[in-house]
Amino acid sequence: MGIRVAVAGASGYAGGELLRLIAGHPELDLVTATAHSQAGAPVTAVHPQLAGLDLVFAATEPAALADADLVFLALPHGESAALAAALPESVRVVDLGADHRLRDAAAWSRYYGGEHAGAWVYGLPELPGQRARIAAATRVANTGCYAAAITLALAPLVAAGAVAPADVVVVAASGTSGAGRAAKAHLLGSEVMGDLSPYKVGAHQHVPEIKQATGATSLSLTPVLAPMPRGILATVTAVPTGDADPRAVLAAAYADSAFVHVLPEGTWPHTAATLGANSCHLQATVDVDSGRVIVVSAIDNLGKGAAGQAVQCANLMLGLPETTGLSTYGVTP
Amino acid sequence: MGIRVAVAGASGYAGGELLRLIAGHPELDLVTATAHSQAGAPVTAVHPQLAGLDLVFAATEPAALADADLVFLALPHGESAALAAALPESVRVVDLGADHRLRDAAAWSRYYGGEHAGAWVYGLPELPGQRARIAAATRVANTGCYAAAITLALAPLVAAGAVAPADVVVVAASGTSGAGRAAKAHLLGSEVMGDLSPYKVGAHQHVPEIKQATGATSLSLTPVLAPMPRGILATVTAVPTGDADPRAVLAAAYADSAFVHVLPEGTWPHTAATLGANSCHLQATVDVDSGRVIVVSAIDNLGKGAAGQAVQCANLMLGLPETTGLSTYGVTP
Amino acid sequence: MGIRVAVAGASGYAGGELLRLIAGHPELDLVTATAHSQAGAPVTAVHPQLAGLDLVFAATEPAALADADLVFLALPHGESAALAAALPESVRVVDLGADHRLRDAAAWSRYYGGEHAGAWVYGLPELPGQRARIAAATRVANTGCYAAAITLALAPLVAAGAVAPADVVVVAASGTSGAGRAAKAHLLGSEVMGDLSPYKVGAHQHVPEIKQATGATSLSLTPVLAPMPRGILATVTAVPTGDADPRAVLAAAYADSAFVHVLPEGTWPHTAATLGANSCHLQATVDVDSGRVIVVSAIDNLGKGAAGQAVQCANLMLGLPETTGLSTYGVTP
Amino acid sequence: MGIRVAVAGASGYAGGELLRLIAGHPELDLVTATAHSQAGAPVTAVHPQLAGLDLVFAATEPAALADADLVFLALPHGESAALAAALPESVRVVDLGADHRLRDAAAWSRYYGGEHAGAWVYGLPELPGQRARIAAATRVANTGCYAAAITLALAPLVAAGAVAPADVVVVAASGTSGAGRAAKAHLLGSEVMGDLSPYKVGAHQHVPEIKQATGATSLSLTPVLAPMPRGILATVTAVPTGDADPRAVLAAAYADSAFVHVLPEGTWPHTAATLGANSCHLQATVDVDSGRVIVVSAIDNLGKGAAGQAVQCANLMLGLPETTGLSTYGVTP
Repeated sequence: MGIRVAVAGASGYAGGELLRLIAGHPELDLVTATAHSQAGAPVTAVHPQLAGLDLVFAATEPAALADADLVFLALPHGESAALAAALPESVRVVDLGADHRLRDAAAWSRYYGGEHAGAWVYGLPELPGQRARIAAATRVANTGCYAAAITLALAPLVAAGAVAPADVVVVAASGTSGAGRAAKAHLLGSEVMGDLSPYKVGAHQHVPEIKQATGATSLSLTPVLAPMPRGILATVTAVPTGDADPRAVLAAAYADSAFVHVLPEGTWPHTAATLGANSCHLQATVDVDSGRVIVVSAIDNLGKGAAGQAVQCANLMLGLPETTGLSTYGVTP
Repeated sequence: MGIRVAVAGASGYAGGELLRLIAGHPELDLVTATAHSQAGAPVTAVHPQLAGLDLVFAATEPAALADADLVFLALPHGESAALAAALPESVRVVDLGADHRLRDAAAWSRYYGGEHAGAWVYGLPELPGQRARIAAATRVANTGCYAAAITLALAPLVAAGAVAPADVVVVAASGTSGAGRAAKAHLLGSEVMGDLSPYKVGAHQHVPEIKQATGATSLSLTPVLAPMPRGILATVTAVPTGDADPRAVLAAAYADSAFVHVLPEGTWPHTAATLGANSCHLQATVDVDSGRVIVVSAIDNLGKGAAGQAVQCANLMLGLPETTGLSTYGVTP
Repeated sequence: MGIRVAVAGASGYAGGELLRLIAGHPELDLVTATAHSQAGAPVTAVHPQLAGLDLVFAATEPAALADADLVFLALPHGESAALAAALPESVRVVDLGADHRLRDAAAWSRYYGGEHAGAWVYGLPELPGQRARIAAATRVANTGCYAAAITLALAPLVAAGAVAPADVVVVAASGTSGAGRAAKAHLLGSEVMGDLSPYKVGAHQHVPEIKQATGATSLSLTPVLAPMPRGILATVTAVPTGDADPRAVLAAAYADSAFVHVLPEGTWPHTAATLGANSCHLQATVDVDSGRVIVVSAIDNLGKGAAGQAVQCANLMLGLPETTGLSTYGVTP
Repeated sequence: MGIRVAVAGASGYAGGELLRLIAGHPELDLVTATAHSQAGAPVTAVHPQLAGLDLVFAATEPAALADADLVFLALPHGESAALAAALPESVRVVDLGADHRLRDAAAWSRYYGGEHAGAWVYGLPELPGQRARIAAATRVANTGCYAAAITLALAPLVAAGAVAPADVVVVAASGTSGAGRAAKAHLLGSEVMGDLSPYKVGAHQHVPEIKQATGATSLSLTPVLAPMPRGILATVTAVPTGDADPRAVLAAAYADSAFVHVLPEGTWPHTAATLGANSCHLQATVDVDSGRVIVVSAIDNLGKGAAGQAVQCANLMLGLPETTGLSTYGVTP
């Protein structure tokens, strides 16, 4: 008998990926998946890729989750806090939403609206000392998808003093699953195929999270929707403070990380290589003309950017090897 | 210490997928991967999705393969036979190429050219009695990708006498990885994105294999290249012989198959649901206007159509549970 | 001063393409574009590709259209008839919807529901004698997109007695714009990219139209949604009655057609070559194994399948050269 | 009898788009199209989208071009100079290659290698005073595709003193046709679909051209290959010098430009809206967190980024209205 886990909000894309990972995880038993409008429907009616998984969506209520050992919350931003508060302290919780990421209550209210629910341990195991904090926690706030890609690229450089924390410029493109499953006209296939479109230019809600996680003091983020289902490619540029080799700084920071790969010199990350995996690929250089440090980071937004990351945190919280049930190998081509 | 396996021709798409599956397989140890022009290069230089896999391509020669317990051959059509002949009988071999699929030597020569190497046990475990034959064999000829999708859709209906074996009409569309990794102008992204293009119309080399595997006596196959990396969707139509419900015939045939799912009535297969998995999704109906039986079959051409199928056969040959190291769940979206 | 034209239902994909074609047409003046929920919005808010076109959507009402010389109706199926009936007989009308295509009232009711509005002259100029009928008409029913692709492939062969009218088997794949602009979850980019999915298998509402237009007496149509914004590739197979060369029959039928190209022998149509154009590309052969005739037809579903076809009909109705304002050249790659 | 034009290097993607535009241009007669390895082949064998265009590729030699009134050179970088030098001065020439763009011979040699051929009038009509210079020239160097998108976004802001010329940071993603038609494995559809991949990070050869055209003194450009055939989306960020509204500066600069549209406030450019057109869409804002100016620019890399731009320049050189034969309306969706 394995560890009993439940997923709240399992009808969305991150929820579906959680179900897939849990179903293939050797130590976890999926006991409950909840949904709102899909409650009562077979899981496979919403996620046909899980054909063979015999489970019906329960309604998203505390009673459906309370007897699990660990609960993943994959709910829209702003909906996790109330549900989490209603769960017994003995139930471990990983929240994939934004509700418990920010320490700055004002930033929360400005970007998300409503009252701030308070910060939990931040679920990015590769940050210094973070594995231990996650392992000791019963409540963990999973990173945002952009935040995961950008923080892994930037945090070690800021921490090492290799780049200035101010004037960081980021352009990051995401596959469409990052925009969720709600039926919106601008997300139709006819609109997104063959198209690149920026959005929330000049004021993205992930900026406070990224600054908090990386130590950056000023950061411009331009997100772009790209014509592919999955993947984030983040181009992070910053002003160097000296002559440190940015690639060497990153390589040292992730020498012991199973999921973060600093690629061989001259090889640049691309998103397809991380598809379906929990990996992050990194490369860095110094720009010839401007002298800026340029770091490129690639992840699967549903993998290291959401569900994979969440399972990695859960493994730590449960005392399992960090890599249990997770792949470092992408489904490519 | 696990079972020692090698992959010959591991620099192509099917080869890369084999490496991914073997690397995640709990009982198999990947000891050798060979290539032609890439011999001497790190595997990750060709397959960046395998970052972290520390292996260098050997040259494709019998000596590099002879001490493996099992060898997968993922070579171009016509190149397997000579290599296989040079391997000790004690080494089990799964050939992903076409060399040993056909019993009809004349058909081989007509479609592939050159001399016929003789037929091996056909590697489609879901055919009646085939699991036992594969388990007893040391040489297995993996199905072609189109043949896998079409045979799973059609063979039970012909065997049951539910459809006539003559006048079968098939249109099947494949993702571009089915066309391989050789750099050809008509396979460039600029050409294939936004495009559907038929090819080998009127005379596809897979027709004899499909007829042999299904029992069809006359079959028209029109293959179409589709703008996606993976996936085959086969639409198979045939003339019914009576009133049998084609869905019921298929459901009965695959009741005990872990990888073949006949979907709930009214739900039609689509390729994305099988991405990265070893599954086949099926559905059938009778056309209102023409009275024809229509069966639709979806697979991942690199999964159930190539590498996944090959690992399934290897599991049987090695006495392992058929599903070891294989997923039934697609990476979707 | 040009000919005054209006478009009703101009906020959809076919409507947007009509606006683009009219704006580039040397003889037509776009005076009115109507919409339902978008009435009052600038046209460019819905169609950003028309930046520079200074027009606001009117509400879809007869009064907004009555003083045009010609009106295009690009409304959902079932909504054209009432609006058309309210327009003066002096206003020429091309209906892109299905309301007036079928002569068989029972077939209309079965597939579309509701009462049949009666048949108009069928808007496929390349059918024998049809140019004159269209030129003489004040009301024309534009073809459906699948019907255009399939009829151009099949009608000359049936008419010439080269194939049997019974047992025609068609599989046709369409880009997603054919499914319209309504926000539905299964049409999201995340769902359709990387995916092929059949729909309405066994009973598509276009079958009666295709039979009426081609003379086929029994026809199986399996439509497939393909991961691209535009394009239809139809694979049409039929049983030959003799030894006629199907390519020669088609070449003779379209020798004088500016928009229908029977490709050189051995060259097969593909959809991207017709993108943005009003062209149809055809090729035919006889299948080696089955003896069936196979014809492949490629169009842009919004071009020859909708808006381009409609402008071609309008040109004929207005006494203009058929090709005015229309391109035969695709936007490729 | 129209103006006689020829295209050298017409078998590539930019060449094919030139042929399409010339074939639809009311004043230009296409008399010659040349190619290297395709010399002797029908144009439609290489460009099936031009079905109906009856022309055979000539070899790329001066004699084939010398009797044209105007020649477009669409050759690989480094091959234009010698051919241009062999053409009579009376023949007007628009060079789509890089050979004659740079005034800085050292920069040319560093990024392209070989000897510098000297600079021609720069073919970006929207730069101040440039229309008159182009109209007076017999030799014009067309912009690079990235340079077109970025210069239109940045030049007016630098010229107005609204942003500092140093520390400009650009990330620009391009569709795959920008990488040309040569068959390379990393450009296969299987590789690029579902993938974002950066290239030439830290040292792109377009940087000197962009600095020359915009007045920027230091600029970091990270190019990204995006999974679509066409389109460039450039995100340009720069440090403001005061409180000027960047959108207002751009709107004033392009008030009289038919092809450059500064979108309504709050609406951001996306590439699909420019597909097949010669338009550039722009929008700008000031980033809340960093205070940087962010400008986003969208073009079709084969339109305003190559062939469309070249025809616009040719129109000016020939005394025709700038917009003749060019569309401002995109083929969308």
